[in-house]
Amino acid sequence: MKIGIVGLGLIGGSLGLKLQSLNHTIYGIANNEINKKKAKEKKLANFVSCDLNLLKECELIILALPIKDLINPSEQLVASIPQESFVTDVGSVKEPIVKKWEKLHPLFIGSHPMAGTEQRGVDSGFEGLFKNAMWVITPTKNSDLNAIKTISELIKSMSCSICQTTPKDHDKAVSLISHLPIFLASALIEAAHTKNNQSLADLAQKLASTGFSDTSRVGGGNEQLGLELAINNQINLLDAINNFKNKLNSLELLIKEKNWELLSKKLAEAKEIRKNFIN
Amino acid sequence: MKIGIVGLGLIGGSLGLKLQSLNHTIYGIANNEINKKKAKEKKLANFVSCDLNLLKECELIILALPIKDLINPSEQLVASIPQESFVTDVGSVKEPIVKKWEKLHPLFIGSHPMAGTEQRGVDSGFEGLFKNAMWVITPTKNSDLNAIKTISELIKSMSCSICQTTPKDHDKAVSLISHLPIFLASALIEAAHTKNNQSLADLAQKLASTGFSDTSRVGGGNEQLGLELAINNQINLLDAINNFKNKLNSLELLIKEKNWELLSKKLAEAKEIRKNFIN
Repeated sequence: MKIGIVGLGLIGGSLGLKLQSLNHTIYGIANNEINKKKAKEKKLANFVSCDLNLLKECELIILALPIKDLINPSEQLVASIPQESFVTDVGSVKEPIVKKWEKLHPLFIGSHPMAGTEQRGVDSGFEGLFKNAMWVITPTKNSDLNAIKTISELIKSMSCSICQTTPKDHDKAVSLISHLPIFLASALIEAAHTKNNQSLADLAQKLASTGFSDTSRVGGGNEQLGLELAINNQINLLDAINNFKNKLNSLELLIKEKNWELLSKKLAEAKEIRKNFIN
Repeated sequence: MKIGIVGLGLIGGSLGLKLQSLNHTIYGIANNEINKKKAKEKKLANFVSCDLNLLKECELIILALPIKDLINPSEQLVASIPQESFVTDVGSVKEPIVKKWEKLHPLFIGSHPMAGTEQRGVDSGFEGLFKNAMWVITPTKNSDLNAIKTISELIKSMSCSICQTTPKDHDKAVSLISHLPIFLASALIEAAHTKNNQSLADLAQKLASTGFSDTSRVGGGNEQLGLELAINNQINLLDAINNFKNKLNSLELLIKEKNWELLSKKLAEAKEIRKNFIN
């Protein structure tokens, strides 16, 4: 298939590499000349251009842009997408994007691959990013059945599992398992960096090991992403933070009251629940 | 050197393997016949026994026991340790252990290797566990200089870095970077598992990816360890939780007030601070 990818960062670049390996012809849109050159060097697509007219060729177009550019797409981008092409995006929130794009294009289906790293930009893509990943699609009652089918088949062909849900439920679920962790990690890093006690901060820094590294990892990512998630999934994120605070308060109370029996039960319960999330 | 290791779980077993590779002779104490057999099969020590008298041979003894057994050691264990042997422990809290053992043995120095996995028990040890790890020693004004020197040299010989601090400062620092993350991870798991909305819990489970997996990892560990840390580092842990809650509340307020500029600044700040903790 002739596939257009708009944006050749971590997700777009990885898609370009993977889809070329499956013998599709990839038309990649870079946002500037420097990235165009790098994308060509890295062979992220068969054809790379900054000119959106390249999309005129494409039967299917994947919008791999930052959330803000998906919610407020340029007029030029919208005009460049043929009305008969299938269109999807890969943004981490779905409700505002789907709401916008369903109005803009008859064959749009929102989607979101559950895969990522802390890297970003044209240097960060790699072919294996989506291996065994869960990929959410969020069609609505307005969606074209042929678009759902075509986009689903493309996703499956990349060895991904598909999960179909509504934009609303997607945004709630990811607020818990993806967006909340970013803000927890960020608060943990700030807490460990005791500004009023430099020698303690230095010692904590020295002793930090794999436990701290893993728990704080997603707090080390691109602040622009965290910000966009907060802006575009604000209510769900606040709910998730509130929910988390209630759970933490319960644990704190057990520690204060030295209710070791119940604390042990709670820790064991969480350990068991986690197994369902990981396997 | 003839080295005794009391307890052949993750830390004790890994020490047995590593120290044998450095040509020490290891005398391992298992807590029951089943573990003795397994430890022999896994060659965790040159000699393995359940009989504490084995320690009579040893010039240096490492206590690799659960915290509660370090704070309340059996009389038999104390009686089996020669007065002229050097003694250290590897417990994750230091103040209560050092307080106890300084009274029990003239050549005791508290220590704590900053290394671990979620595994436990006689099957979990492996030679590489301590590779490049930071290892804390917490001598006090009562400590024997020769004991400090001997134990430090042994630690360095295992390719570990040494950090010397007081038991009190150790316990404060680890409450932030090691104990706090366990309770955050546990609360995160409970929050993601929305009990009042099973379909959301199921969807969250399906979509959970590496971000959730890493952020929650230390909440998947042995609840007995979490419990012992809460019991034996209670005040510092409560301080750390409180400190964390203040940071999270600040982020929450910025999200509520849509103060995106400051939120972005805070996320970027945490990202920068994290680099100092990881490198």
